[in-house]
Amino acid sequence: MRYEFYYWPSIQGRGEFVRLALEEAGADYVDVARRPGKRGVPAMMPFLEGKRGLRPPYAPPFLKAGKLVIAQTAMILHYLGPRLGLSPRDEAGGLWLHQLQLTIADMVTHIHDTHHPVSGWLYYEQQRPAAILRTKDFWRYRVPKYLGYFERIVAKGGGPYVLGRRLSYVDLSLFQIVEGLRYAFPKRMKRFERKIPYLIELHDRVAKRPNTKAYLASKRRIPFSQWGIYRYFKELDR
Amino acid sequence: MRYEFYYWPSIQGRGEFVRLALEEAGADYVDVARRPGKRGVPAMMPFLEGKRGLRPPYAPPFLKAGKLVIAQTAMILHYLGPRLGLSPRDEAGGLWLHQLQLTIADMVTHIHDTHHPVSGWLYYEQQRPAAILRTKDFWRYRVPKYLGYFERIVAKGGGPYVLGRRLSYVDLSLFQIVEGLRYAFPKRMKRFERKIPYLIELHDRVAKRPNTKAYLASKRRIPFSQWGIYRYFKELDR
Repeated sequence: MRYEFYYWPSIQGRGEFVRLALEEAGADYVDVARRPGKRGVPAMMPFLEGKRGLRPPYAPPFLKAGKLVIAQTAMILHYLGPRLGLSPRDEAGGLWLHQLQLTIADMVTHIHDTHHPVSGWLYYEQQRPAAILRTKDFWRYRVPKYLGYFERIVAKGGGPYVLGRRLSYVDLSLFQIVEGLRYAFPKRMKRFERKIPYLIELHDRVAKRPNTKAYLASKRRIPFSQWGIYRYFKELDR
Repeated sequence: MRYEFYYWPSIQGRGEFVRLALEEAGADYVDVARRPGKRGVPAMMPFLEGKRGLRPPYAPPFLKAGKLVIAQTAMILHYLGPRLGLSPRDEAGGLWLHQLQLTIADMVTHIHDTHHPVSGWLYYEQQRPAAILRTKDFWRYRVPKYLGYFERIVAKGGGPYVLGRRLSYVDLSLFQIVEGLRYAFPKRMKRFERKIPYLIELHDRVAKRPNTKAYLASKRRIPFSQWGIYRYFKELDR
């Protein structure tokens, strides 16, 4: 089946977790909103306006698989996982990965809110004091707790991946978390990485996988920017 | 099967969405951390410390169902739904409800962050200006978008519930959202409710269901308080 994937064409954002899975698996898919002209972003809008079916997505990303329209990043991966060979087929294994992905989603919200704690409708400069304080707490409490949790899980299983020797979509997402934190907080991340050797090893392994490596080097991989989840501000990276 | 449910015993919090489902379904369950003494909160800690099995939850709430330990509120409901008769058994229907519940989870984070936008480790009084601004945007943009989305879905299906005539766990969660917003923002909510007649009708129907009505009147229902997701501050409710 050819999957239709819908997400904003100019950022990695939450959609990138799905793109990484589709690319690693070599799935047959179209990144709809990146098509030129009317076949691009305008093709996404009827879904969001509730004009396509009785079960409209609340926001991108969403995936069209046959007649099914599926939204929410973690749920898209939960659906795709067994179909792309990136998740075990037993219920307990599938739920475990989904739970980890939902925890990653919670962390992503915290990452975004470091630079926009007050309002997504104001510029960073208009919420700078709050951003500085939130970032301080993020690195003091959230990062050690979230990444410490994932580190322990990989360590317990013996690595290199979350499920041991078998790659899953959660590994691809953890790769993306490390990449993003390196972009937004290069200094802080450099200091922190010594505490998460298993996650760094996992990251490096993912980066070397042929399909993912080819994707990362291609134009399909949108660069990090100041419009995504991860943004670099010198004063937040002390 | 007797389910073991684990969540902080003194607040409704995210756990309440699960409690409502268990209660409405008349499920056989133990609210473990509410038991007295060592059988209460201390019984929850080994799970969070990773001492019980290789798949530890990141945070409460979590559910023990036989050997399975399941965390993340929306995922617990996704698991329980078909087992409690609160979700259809077909894949598309189950995914649709799960997607809605994940969208509710996103809204819950926004609700919490109205009073704690900067840091969960500071008092409200230490982040008041940011809270006032975040609350303003919350009511200007987020509430109309989230509740407008759910209102349209119920309206399209003809009501009274999200799936039409059949109750689901999403209805119980939407009831809880309305209840919570009424507690935290009585003035604002009073003005807003005229825009969401279907959701108010859904809320009222849920409140009258015998099992839920009995639960809400019981001591098992923990009252709203200034320690939960929803908190009342006069200056945020203009």
